[in-house]
Amino acid sequence: MKAEIISIGTELLLGEITDTNSAYLAGQLPLLGLDIHFMSTVGDNQHRLVDTLRQAWQRSDIIIATGGLGPTQDDITREAIAELLNEEITIDPALVKKFQELFSYYKIEMPPSNIRQAGVIPSAQIIPNPRGTAPGWWIERGERIIVTMPGPPREMQLMWTQEVLPRLQQRTEGTVILSKTLKIFDLTEAKVDELVSPFLSATNPTLATYAKADGIHLRITAKARLASEAQQLINQREADIRAILDDNIWGVDSESLESIVGALFMAKGLTLATMESSTGGLLANVITNVSGSSKYFRGGLVTYADEAKAAFGLDAQLISQYGAVSAEAAEAMATVARDKLGTAIGVGLTGVTGPIEIEGKPVGTIFVGIDDGQRKKSLAKNYPGNRLQVKQRAVTSALFELRRILL
Amino acid sequence: MKAEIISIGTELLLGEITDTNSAYLAGQLPLLGLDIHFMSTVGDNQHRLVDTLRQAWQRSDIIIATGGLGPTQDDITREAIAELLNEEITIDPALVKKFQELFSYYKIEMPPSNIRQAGVIPSAQIIPNPRGTAPGWWIERGERIIVTMPGPPREMQLMWTQEVLPRLQQRTEGTVILSKTLKIFDLTEAKVDELVSPFLSATNPTLATYAKADGIHLRITAKARLASEAQQLINQREADIRAILDDNIWGVDSESLESIVGALFMAKGLTLATMESSTGGLLANVITNVSGSSKYFRGGLVTYADEAKAAFGLDAQLISQYGAVSAEAAEAMATVARDKLGTAIGVGLTGVTGPIEIEGKPVGTIFVGIDDGQRKKSLAKNYPGNRLQVKQRAVTSALFELRRILL
Repeated sequence: MKAEIISIGTELLLGEITDTNSAYLAGQLPLLGLDIHFMSTVGDNQHRLVDTLRQAWQRSDIIIATGGLGPTQDDITREAIAELLNEEITIDPALVKKFQELFSYYKIEMPPSNIRQAGVIPSAQIIPNPRGTAPGWWIERGERIIVTMPGPPREMQLMWTQEVLPRLQQRTEGTVILSKTLKIFDLTEAKVDELVSPFLSATNPTLATYAKADGIHLRITAKARLASEAQQLINQREADIRAILDDNIWGVDSESLESIVGALFMAKGLTLATMESSTGGLLANVITNVSGSSKYFRGGLVTYADEAKAAFGLDAQLISQYGAVSAEAAEAMATVARDKLGTAIGVGLTGVTGPIEIEGKPVGTIFVGIDDGQRKKSLAKNYPGNRLQVKQRAVTSALFELRRILL
Repeated sequence: MKAEIISIGTELLLGEITDTNSAYLAGQLPLLGLDIHFMSTVGDNQHRLVDTLRQAWQRSDIIIATGGLGPTQDDITREAIAELLNEEITIDPALVKKFQELFSYYKIEMPPSNIRQAGVIPSAQIIPNPRGTAPGWWIERGERIIVTMPGPPREMQLMWTQEVLPRLQQRTEGTVILSKTLKIFDLTEAKVDELVSPFLSATNPTLATYAKADGIHLRITAKARLASEAQQLINQREADIRAILDDNIWGVDSESLESIVGALFMAKGLTLATMESSTGGLLANVITNVSGSSKYFRGGLVTYADEAKAAFGLDAQLISQYGAVSAEAAEAMATVARDKLGTAIGVGLTGVTGPIEIEGKPVGTIFVGIDDGQRKKSLAKNYPGNRLQVKQRAVTSALFELRRILL
């Protein structure tokens, strides 16, 4: 079946906001076995919107429209669909009552314009919106389906996953498409491609690689008549890939490396401290983005200047012998962090983020040091990219190494 | 004149990448006095692309297409436009020679497929691409213009500013549109709107407000026959607004708050140290995102746990009296940072980022303390939002306060 996505709103045509809904939905529809041939953006103009809907109605089986469901006069998606289908809009009293209850709960007077959002046509079923007052519409006419959802991504995504996706899954009967993403670090995209090449030409499950800030994502997608069959295809392929990529896989799907490392610290009852120079606090910042990180993260030192390194007890002799950007410095920084903050594990991070080389080491050089009280370890890397990219890669390296040591 | 934007590429329809080119171009075209009525995305399918181009040709004066100019068989923008205009593609020998020189400079053998990128039709003028091998096309036929540009944003944006924008400016003769953005902190969007309301209804220059992570952006846009006239309109309106919003304006256009604060530290020859708890290193990280920050930023302490605060000499008595989340703690942290790292100025940052309240203070509470050696100062704020948003706002508050003190 062919699907088409329409984004509605003059603010999109003025470049004031970037349309992320289309890419989100475009990523979801193939999982239902739906093909997308077109995506369009149109402003808050009823004539042009009706033209765009009519064209989609002629060439596609499913139309998914986002935006234009607000309460004001420039929100014209409801009117445009009524015109397309030649139906009348009437106000649904049950929806009006619901809006009134919602506003009175927040002790706000309901603006009269909100009544417009309770408008509905005979063909449309109301799709509830748990995060706003704009309900969606689900319309079936012959073989065709039209879905409308609100424009704000947090409202749209919840409505999609809770309401629209399950209904579409029923319609695309007989086919279940599932996918799982394996997250990989310390290998290039070309290397991952090469290692999994025996499976790249398979058509079920398929494999796709994506280069991301936290490494390479490898997506396995399987199609079957039953969810259990699709799941089994994914499990088998995942096992094949794990046998090859071994411990370069640090997580799956929506997991983040910092939350995985955090869970390992919690499980083992260990504590962590950091000492950073070139990354300037990014490692500590990423670690503390995890809710509950105060249970294992004691604190960190950001020693950007050499005087700051000395002020916290880093051996000046060692720096002058090996340089501030060295494996020896990274290990010594790990030890200082551990000692100063009394933790089980200390991490030291030093490097060159640019714009110019330091101590003859090129931009992109980084050293990670780890001291767990029993032994010290370090690793050296060189990453391409600008200042922010090098900082990001250095922090991912440090987290990946922490994970390795904790396992 | 009516313009239409077409984005070409199956990867966009699969949701593998988000189309940022459309929003970029949509933001640029109004500056030329061009209206955008439609934006479309279409995959690497010649039949569907020709249909989309034909529709745009019928309803718009200017078509701007991005993507599909690569060397491989699935890049079909050139072929689709040739079909639309019923012209033949021939290979331009001068372009082939240029590609060969480029590849030999990098000591790479030129893949035969790159020859396709030297294809051109009689109506098209070649637009040079300084950042890649995909040239653009500039086509004029009667009153209509078609422009093609490569899909990668860094290639497209340079081609746009250097080549396409100047040509379009000549066509939209007699009108120059300029804009300037004022960046504001510590006022809500509604408050900014209220304060500048005398100027909101003006049609030249116009005002528009946008809520962003670093505060409110206020864009002034002026239209005139000469650039100097447009500039003068902007200057006058900027003076009007500065008279009202005073020192809530911290910068303009592409300036960042951290780079402005950094430039002030450099100009005054002062040094800085930080001590953070709830923001977990984000302040130090943002400060060190500025190239050259090592000239004024000595380092920072991330004291996430109370033990860590004590380990670096924060008065435990003070914490137990006022709490770790207090103005007193923030000021004392500023002093510890300044003393430990021997800097002119110290900043302390403490607060509650969630998910639960601390010491009876609700999520979103933050305290910034600053010690410049002569006096200590603190401010208290409460921000809505999730963990990452509260961290971001807290850091923006601290940088904004540093700017105030340095001025």
